[in-house]
Amino acid sequence: MDQLSQTFQALADPTRRAMLAKLSQGEASVTDLAKPFLKEMSLPAVTKHLKVLEKAGLVTKTKEAQWRPCKINADGLRDVADWMEHYRVFWEESFDRLDAYLKTVTAKEKPKGKKNGRKKK
Amino acid sequence: MDQLSQTFQALADPTRRAMLAKLSQGEASVTDLAKPFLKEMSLPAVTKHLKVLEKAGLVTKTKEAQWRPCKINADGLRDVADWMEHYRVFWEESFDRLDAYLKTVTAKEKPKGKKNGRKKK
Repeated sequence: MDQLSQTFQALADPTRRAMLAKLSQGEASVTDLAKPFLKEMSLPAVTKHLKVLEKAGLVTKTKEAQWRPCKINADGLRDVADWMEHYRVFWEESFDRLDAYLKTVTAKEKPKGKKNGRKKK
Repeated sequence: MDQLSQTFQALADPTRRAMLAKLSQGEASVTDLAKPFLKEMSLPAVTKHLKVLEKAGLVTKTKEAQWRPCKINADGLRDVADWMEHYRVFWEESFDRLDAYLKTVTAKEKPKGKKNGRKKK
Protein backbone atom coordinates (compact mmCIF):
# COMPACT_ATOMS: atom_id res chain seq x y z
CA MET A 1 0.00 0.00 0.00
CA ASP A 2 1.34 3.45 -0.88
CA GLN A 3 2.26 5.78 1.99
CA LEU A 4 -0.63 8.24 1.56
CA SER A 5 -3.19 5.40 1.41
CA GLN A 6 -1.64 3.97 4.56
CA THR A 7 -2.00 7.35 6.29
CA PHE A 8 -5.66 7.71 5.28
CA GLN A 9 -6.27 4.11 6.33
CA ALA A 10 -4.76 4.82 9.76
CA LEU A 11 -7.07 7.81 10.17
CA ALA A 12 -10.15 5.73 9.28
CA ASP A 13 -10.62 4.62 12.88
CA PRO A 14 -12.10 6.58 15.81
CA THR A 15 -9.75 4.98 18.39
CA ARG A 16 -6.68 5.98 16.41
CA ARG A 17 -8.03 9.50 15.90
CA ALA A 18 -8.70 9.71 19.67
CA MET A 19 -5.08 8.69 20.29
CA LEU A 20 -3.87 11.47 18.00
CA ALA A 21 -6.17 13.94 19.77
CA LYS A 22 -4.59 12.93 23.10
CA LEU A 23 -1.06 13.29 21.65
CA SER A 24 -1.95 16.71 20.22
CA GLN A 25 -1.91 17.88 23.85
CA GLY A 26 1.65 16.64 24.36
CA GLU A 27 3.85 13.56 24.53
CA ALA A 28 2.52 10.54 26.40
CA SER A 29 3.78 7.12 27.43
CA VAL A 30 2.14 4.06 25.93
CA THR A 31 0.59 3.34 29.34
CA ASP A 32 -0.96 6.81 29.62
CA LEU A 33 -2.11 6.69 26.02
CA ALA A 34 -3.71 3.28 26.54
CA LYS A 35 -5.53 4.15 29.78
CA PRO A 36 -8.81 5.57 28.34
CA PHE A 37 -9.20 2.61 25.98
CA LEU A 38 -8.56 -0.30 28.33
CA LYS A 39 -12.26 -0.57 29.22
CA GLU A 40 -13.12 -1.40 25.63
CA MET A 41 -9.99 -3.24 24.49
CA SER A 42 -6.88 -5.08 25.61
CA LEU A 43 -3.43 -3.53 25.86
CA PRO A 44 -2.18 -5.54 22.84
CA ALA A 45 -5.10 -4.12 20.81
CA VAL A 46 -4.10 -0.60 21.83
CA THR A 47 -0.45 -1.31 20.95
CA LYS A 48 -1.57 -2.58 17.55
CA HIS A 49 -3.43 0.68 16.86
CA LEU A 50 -0.32 2.57 17.90
CA LYS A 51 1.79 0.56 15.46
CA VAL A 52 -0.62 1.41 12.64
CA LEU A 53 -0.20 5.10 13.49
CA GLU A 54 3.60 4.70 13.55
CA LYS A 55 3.72 2.92 10.18
CA ALA A 56 1.47 5.64 8.73
CA GLY A 57 3.96 8.33 9.75
CA LEU A 58 1.55 9.87 12.25
CA VAL A 59 3.23 8.95 15.53
CA THR A 60 6.86 8.41 16.58
CA LYS A 61 8.48 7.20 19.74
CA THR A 62 10.92 9.77 21.05
CA LYS A 63 14.43 8.37 21.24
CA GLU A 64 15.91 10.88 23.69
CA ALA A 65 14.01 10.09 26.87
CA GLN A 66 14.47 6.76 28.61
CA TRP A 67 10.71 6.18 28.90
CA ARG A 68 10.39 6.69 25.10
CA PRO A 69 7.18 8.73 25.03
CA CYS A 70 4.97 8.76 21.93
CA LYS A 71 4.46 12.00 20.06
CA ILE A 72 2.79 13.20 16.90
CA ASN A 73 4.87 12.84 13.77
CA ALA A 74 3.87 15.68 11.49
CA ASP A 75 5.05 13.92 8.32
CA GLY A 76 1.83 11.98 7.85
CA LEU A 77 -0.33 15.00 8.64
CA ARG A 78 1.66 17.12 6.18
CA ASP A 79 1.05 14.57 3.41
CA VAL A 80 -2.70 14.74 4.06
CA ALA A 81 -2.63 18.56 4.22
CA ASP A 82 -0.65 18.59 1.00
CA TRP A 83 -3.21 16.38 -0.73
CA MET A 84 -6.12 18.43 0.69
CA GLU A 85 -4.62 21.65 -0.65
CA HIS A 86 -5.58 20.66 -4.20
CA TYR A 87 -9.24 20.52 -3.11
CA ARG A 88 -9.24 23.73 -1.09
CA VAL A 89 -11.58 25.48 -3.55
CA PHE A 90 -14.20 22.80 -2.89
CA TRP A 91 -14.09 22.63 0.90
CA GLU A 92 -13.73 26.38 1.36
CA GLU A 93 -16.81 26.93 -0.77
CA SER A 94 -18.54 24.31 1.33
CA PHE A 95 -17.55 26.10 4.58
CA ASP A 96 -18.90 29.35 3.10
CA ARG A 97 -22.21 27.69 2.25
CA LEU A 98 -22.49 26.20 5.74
CA ASP A 99 -21.72 29.60 7.23
CA ALA A 100 -24.40 31.26 5.10
CA TYR A 101 -26.90 28.57 6.11
CA LEU A 102 -26.13 28.98 9.81
CA LYS A 103 -26.59 32.74 9.49
CA THR A 104 -30.03 32.17 7.96
CA VAL A 105 -30.98 29.81 10.77
CA THR A 106 -29.82 32.28 13.42
CA ALA A 107 -31.62 35.17 11.70
CA LYS A 108 -34.84 33.16 11.62
CA GLU A 109 -34.57 32.10 15.24
CA LYS A 110 -33.77 35.47 16.79
CA PRO A 111 -37.10 37.29 16.22
CA LYS A 112 -38.99 34.46 17.88
CA GLY A 113 -36.95 35.01 21.03
CA LYS A 114 -35.87 31.37 21.21
CA LYS A 115 -33.02 30.36 23.43
CA ASN A 116 -29.73 29.92 21.60
CA GLY A 117 -30.57 26.38 20.61
CA ARG A 118 -28.11 25.86 17.80
CA LYS A 119 -24.49 26.63 18.30
CA LYS A 120 -21.84 26.69 15.60
CA LYS A 121 -19.47 23.86 16.46
CA MET B 1 -18.56 2.80 10.64
CA ASP B 2 -18.82 6.50 11.53
CA GLN B 3 -18.99 9.00 8.67
CA LEU B 4 -15.50 10.49 9.10
CA SER B 5 -13.91 7.02 9.25
CA GLN B 6 -15.81 6.12 6.09
CA THR B 7 -14.46 9.24 4.37
CA PHE B 8 -10.85 8.49 5.39
CA GLN B 9 -11.35 4.89 4.33
CA ALA B 10 -12.57 6.02 0.90
CA LEU B 11 -9.47 8.19 0.49
CA ALA B 12 -7.16 5.29 1.37
CA ASP B 13 -7.04 4.10 -2.24
CA PRO B 14 -5.04 5.53 -5.16
CA THR B 15 -7.76 4.73 -7.75
CA ARG B 16 -10.40 6.59 -5.77
CA ARG B 17 -8.05 9.55 -5.24
CA ALA B 18 -7.35 9.56 -9.00
CA MET B 19 -11.11 9.67 -9.63
CA LEU B 20 -11.43 12.68 -7.32
CA ALA B 21 -8.49 14.35 -9.10
CA LYS B 22 -10.31 13.88 -12.41
CA LEU B 23 -13.56 15.27 -10.97
CA SER B 24 -11.70 18.26 -9.53
CA GLN B 25 -11.38 19.40 -13.16
CA GLY B 26 -15.14 19.28 -13.66
CA GLU B 27 -18.17 17.00 -13.85
CA ALA B 28 -17.80 13.72 -15.72
CA SER B 29 -20.04 10.85 -16.79
CA VAL B 30 -19.38 7.41 -15.28
CA THR B 31 -18.11 6.29 -18.70
CA ASP B 32 -15.60 9.13 -18.96
CA LEU B 33 -14.53 8.67 -15.37
CA ALA B 34 -14.02 4.93 -15.89
CA LYS B 35 -12.02 5.21 -19.14
CA PRO B 36 -8.48 5.60 -17.70
CA PHE B 37 -8.97 2.65 -15.34
CA LEU B 38 -10.45 0.08 -17.70
CA LYS B 39 -7.01 -1.28 -18.59
CA GLU B 40 -6.43 -2.35 -15.00
CA MET B 41 -9.96 -3.17 -13.87
CA SER B 42 -13.48 -3.99 -14.99
CA LEU B 43 -16.32 -1.47 -15.24
CA PRO B 44 -18.10 -3.04 -12.21
CA ALA B 45 -14.90 -2.57 -10.20
CA VAL B 46 -14.80 1.10 -11.21
CA THR B 47 -18.49 1.50 -10.33
CA LYS B 48 -17.81 -0.05 -6.94
CA HIS B 49 -15.05 2.50 -6.22
CA LEU B 50 -17.46 5.24 -7.25
CA LYS B 51 -20.10 3.93 -4.83
CA VAL B 52 -17.53 4.02 -1.99
CA LEU B 53 -16.85 7.68 -2.83
CA GLU B 54 -20.59 8.42 -2.89
CA LYS B 55 -21.22 6.74 0.46
CA ALA B 56 -18.28 8.66 1.92
CA GLY B 57 -19.86 11.98 0.92
CA LEU B 58 -17.09 12.74 -1.57
CA VAL B 59 -18.97 12.36 -4.86
CA THR B 60 -22.58 12.94 -5.91
CA LYS B 61 -24.49 12.28 -9.10
CA THR B 62 -26.05 15.46 -10.39
CA LYS B 63 -29.82 15.17 -10.57
CA GLU B 64 -30.48 18.00 -13.02
CA ALA B 65 -28.90 16.71 -16.20
CA GLN B 66 -30.32 13.68 -17.97
CA TRP B 67 -26.90 12.02 -18.27
CA ARG B 68 -26.46 12.39 -14.47
CA PRO B 69 -22.78 13.37 -14.38
CA CYS B 70 -20.67 12.74 -11.28
CA LYS B 71 -19.23 15.65 -9.39
CA ILE B 72 -17.27 16.28 -6.22
CA ASN B 73 -19.38 16.55 -3.08
CA ALA B 74 -17.58 18.97 -0.79
CA ASP B 75 -19.23 17.62 2.38
CA GLY B 76 -16.72 14.81 2.84
CA LEU B 77 -13.77 17.06 2.06
CA ARG B 78 -15.05 19.66 4.53
CA ASP B 79 -15.23 17.04 7.29
CA VAL B 80 -11.60 16.09 6.64
CA ALA B 81 -10.52 19.76 6.48
CA ASP B 82 -12.40 20.37 9.71
CA TRP B 83 -10.62 17.49 11.42
CA MET B 84 -7.23 18.58 10.00
CA GLU B 85 -7.70 22.10 11.36
CA HIS B 86 -7.08 20.86 14.91
CA TYR B 87 -3.62 19.62 13.82
CA ARG B 88 -2.67 22.71 11.80
CA VAL B 89 0.07 23.67 14.27
CA PHE B 90 1.77 20.31 13.58
CA TRP B 91 1.62 20.22 9.80
CA GLU B 92 2.39 23.89 9.34
CA GLU B 93 5.51 23.51 11.47
CA SER B 94 6.37 20.48 9.37
CA PHE B 95 5.95 22.49 6.13
CA ASP B 96 8.22 25.17 7.60
CA ARG B 97 10.88 22.61 8.45
CA LEU B 98 10.69 21.10 4.96
CA ASP B 99 11.00 24.57 3.47
CA ALA B 100 14.04 25.37 5.60
CA TYR B 101 15.63 22.06 4.60
CA LEU B 102 15.02 22.68 0.90
CA LYS B 103 16.57 26.13 1.23
CA THR B 104 19.68 24.56 2.79
CA VAL B 105 19.91 22.04 -0.03
CA THR B 106 19.52 24.75 -2.68
CA ALA B 107 22.08 26.98 -0.96
CA LYS B 108 24.56 24.10 -0.86
CA GLU B 109 23.98 23.14 -4.48
CA LYS B 110 24.19 26.57 -6.06
CA PRO B 111 27.89 27.37 -5.49
CA LYS B 112 28.90 24.06 -7.07
CA GLY B 113 27.08 25.11 -10.24
CA LYS B 114 25.03 21.92 -10.33
CA LYS B 115 22.01 21.67 -12.57
CA ASN B 116 18.72 22.20 -10.77
CA GLY B 117 18.51 18.59 -9.72
CA ARG B 118 16.03 18.83 -6.92
CA LYS B 119 12.76 20.57 -7.44
CA LYS B 120 10.22 21.40 -4.78
CA LYS B 121 7.17 19.29 -5.57
